[in-house]
Amino acid sequence: MTDQSTPEATSSNSARAATAPARTGSGEAGAGAGVSRRRLLGTAGATGLVLGAAGAGLGYTAAPAGATPLTALGADRAMFHGKHQPGITDALQARGHLIAFDLVPGAGRREAAALLRRWSATAERLMAGEPAPHDDTDVALDAGPSALTVTFGFGHSFFDRTDLSRQRPGALDPLPDFSSDRLDQARSNGDLWVQIGANDALVAFHALRALQKDAGGAARVRWQMNGFNRSPGATARPMTARNLMGQIDGTRNPKPADPDFDQRLFVPANGDPAWMANGSYVVVRRIRMLLDDWEKLSLTQQEDVIGRRKSDGAPLSGGSETTAMDLEKTGKDGTYVVPVNAHARITRPDQNGGAAMLRRPFSYHDGFDTDGTPDAGLLFICWQADPLRGFVPVQRKLDRGDALSAYVRHEASGLFAVPGGAAKGEYVGQRLLEG
Amino acid sequence: MTDQSTPEATSSNSARAATAPARTGSGEAGAGAGVSRRRLLGTAGATGLVLGAAGAGLGYTAAPAGATPLTALGADRAMFHGKHQPGITDALQARGHLIAFDLVPGAGRREAAALLRRWSATAERLMAGEPAPHDDTDVALDAGPSALTVTFGFGHSFFDRTDLSRQRPGALDPLPDFSSDRLDQARSNGDLWVQIGANDALVAFHALRALQKDAGGAARVRWQMNGFNRSPGATARPMTARNLMGQIDGTRNPKPADPDFDQRLFVPANGDPAWMANGSYVVVRRIRMLLDDWEKLSLTQQEDVIGRRKSDGAPLSGGSETTAMDLEKTGKDGTYVVPVNAHARITRPDQNGGAAMLRRPFSYHDGFDTDGTPDAGLLFICWQADPLRGFVPVQRKLDRGDALSAYVRHEASGLFAVPGGAAKGEYVGQRLLEG
Repeated sequence: MTDQSTPEATSSNSARAATAPARTGSGEAGAGAGVSRRRLLGTAGATGLVLGAAGAGLGYTAAPAGATPLTALGADRAMFHGKHQPGITDALQARGHLIAFDLVPGAGRREAAALLRRWSATAERLMAGEPAPHDDTDVALDAGPSALTVTFGFGHSFFDRTDLSRQRPGALDPLPDFSSDRLDQARSNGDLWVQIGANDALVAFHALRALQKDAGGAARVRWQMNGFNRSPGATARPMTARNLMGQIDGTRNPKPADPDFDQRLFVPANGDPAWMANGSYVVVRRIRMLLDDWEKLSLTQQEDVIGRRKSDGAPLSGGSETTAMDLEKTGKDGTYVVPVNAHARITRPDQNGGAAMLRRPFSYHDGFDTDGTPDAGLLFICWQADPLRGFVPVQRKLDRGDALSAYVRHEASGLFAVPGGAAKGEYVGQRLLEG
Repeated sequence: MTDQSTPEATSSNSARAATAPARTGSGEAGAGAGVSRRRLLGTAGATGLVLGAAGAGLGYTAAPAGATPLTALGADRAMFHGKHQPGITDALQARGHLIAFDLVPGAGRREAAALLRRWSATAERLMAGEPAPHDDTDVALDAGPSALTVTFGFGHSFFDRTDLSRQRPGALDPLPDFSSDRLDQARSNGDLWVQIGANDALVAFHALRALQKDAGGAARVRWQMNGFNRSPGATARPMTARNLMGQIDGTRNPKPADPDFDQRLFVPANGDPAWMANGSYVVVRRIRMLLDDWEKLSLTQQEDVIGRRKSDGAPLSGGSETTAMDLEKTGKDGTYVVPVNAHARITRPDQNGGAAMLRRPFSYHDGFDTDGTPDAGLLFICWQADPLRGFVPVQRKLDRGDALSAYVRHEASGLFAVPGGAAKGEYVGQRLLEG
């Protein structure tokens, strides 16, 4: 490829990549080297040429706009080691994979420990932009880490299969049934859960295959789902995510500046069980959006369903996206401006005993049904220190009277215990599996 | 969202977006205004604030790296009007949708003409970063055009349904059967074909839904497929695409500098039939990769199958990616260095009567089969002035003796006539439908 270098290849591209700051994942692991030597120097290093890109793929028609130097998108790196696992408080990524595995018959605690050790080693390398420890497929060969994160969790069934049921947190007790659920058990739950996110789809797929291969004879795929978010740089809006209904989603997420942010999200360091110190619980729901019905509503009807303006997420009671919602405000006709069954009213933390969860979703779209209905919606992923105080009370209220419920269908569900981040030399879940 | 602005929001973000050059599509439509006023000014314009992004989604842990100003990724704009339709010679995009429609019973030429008029109006607006002409879903509301392209084509069956069979090009005669084909007819062909590409997945989905709604009572979805490529900025490599086998793909694509580039790709302005002037023919194949088998091969075995080095795409006969392949070079044992059945040997244009096609694919991954096999591979999309001189002779040779054929399976196929680009005030296909 070096012979394709052109005068457009400038050292500033290289400098930009080299100075892209590493993100510190969700923990205190500190800034790393930013990007791996192999990934950034691998292709040009042999000849000592300056890195740079002259044209993207077939970008024939306008060289300047077609040029794609490695940007922060590619160079961005999350850290594997830290207090918490990555992929919880990191910025939303453009591409995501969720995979649940079941241990194969005969595999127990020992095989699970070996698997988590392999997975951790692979995740650490891939997140640094390095190839997998064995038999790399080369699919990510040219790319930077692209903000790759890999997150591991344990489902309720994991603990019986590994003779660790005494270590199973009560928080993993099955979620209550909700009347509006239409759950496909084959796509729900599972012994093990892996979340992959990256800003490049090939980097994400590369990780998916590497982790699947690591599972080898110990675990097999139970279900797998693909998702996406807006690409970094596609918008100048300080983004909360916009979903496939066109709504801004996540406005009321807890903020790191909130005094109780850590307390709501993470099991305390002296929490129970001890192996879950600094861990979190994740609820995963495949929520299909009935877009054909939703899109028939007028803008006003849609906004009444949600309780917020579609354009900017501001409450119907006025202000901007982050203005507190005035639930008591009434219109000329005496009715509430934010309707009583509006989604945003029902989900308000202060209406739910202070429940708060961090939602960090991906949208999904798996084509169309034969009648032209899109199989699309939200891979709802929410994080909390305690699902019985986070997801459950909110969903229970939604189940009773949410105006949005006519336009969504919960098709799959999972609940997983996500242990704290691994320290250097440790693998994720080690404190459980070798405790 | 304006109240989320922070000191990190700088006017340089705004300046960068505003100066991002417009691409000129594939034609001579000239540079446009770069990005639409609505998209760039829509959210901040009302308050007069400077555009800028403080944090991306949940980018809590490191504000500088989490910031996502609108970059060239979002601001990049392809032009709808031009000599050729967009989406043929434009840079590969990160996200793609392919959709085939069939006219509903009773719909004929008049309904088809009205549909193409609606589709053209929608495509023009969306590619400029504007909302759809009617009932916009707001899914792309905050995003720049993100290099969106929309491309329209006509299948063999279209012409009988619209009483235009005398206008059907001979080039649309069905492709010959290839012995290795395992085609699903329900996911093959179709009256109408639409290709959508963009560097943001929500922008692409937004276009998909808008165009599906435009089809209304005139046409219904026959099949639909999703694909992806590397994100711009994820790599500093002057990219040819890397596919899910880890191979560099597209090295031998014709280059705009080639003296016969236009001649190979596009029907001449005085071509036959006249309505196809400046048009092209596209062959679309869903090619599943048998990755479990492929990944069992050693690196040497994989490189022998392809005839090129996996790391950089250089021919096994030496040099770099763009070095001409030495087909006669032999090793110490007297055998060809590039094996006789190597994919790159068989597909060499000079081995195929000069046949050349422009391949502009997307990778796809639609999850796993129940046995854990990935449903993944390549949405092979190739462009040529004449399929009987482009795709067909090459595929015929591959069908006989390509070493790669053991690792791929052609699961669906389509052939479409893609008319030239629409002039201002014209819609795509007008010269056919009102000819």
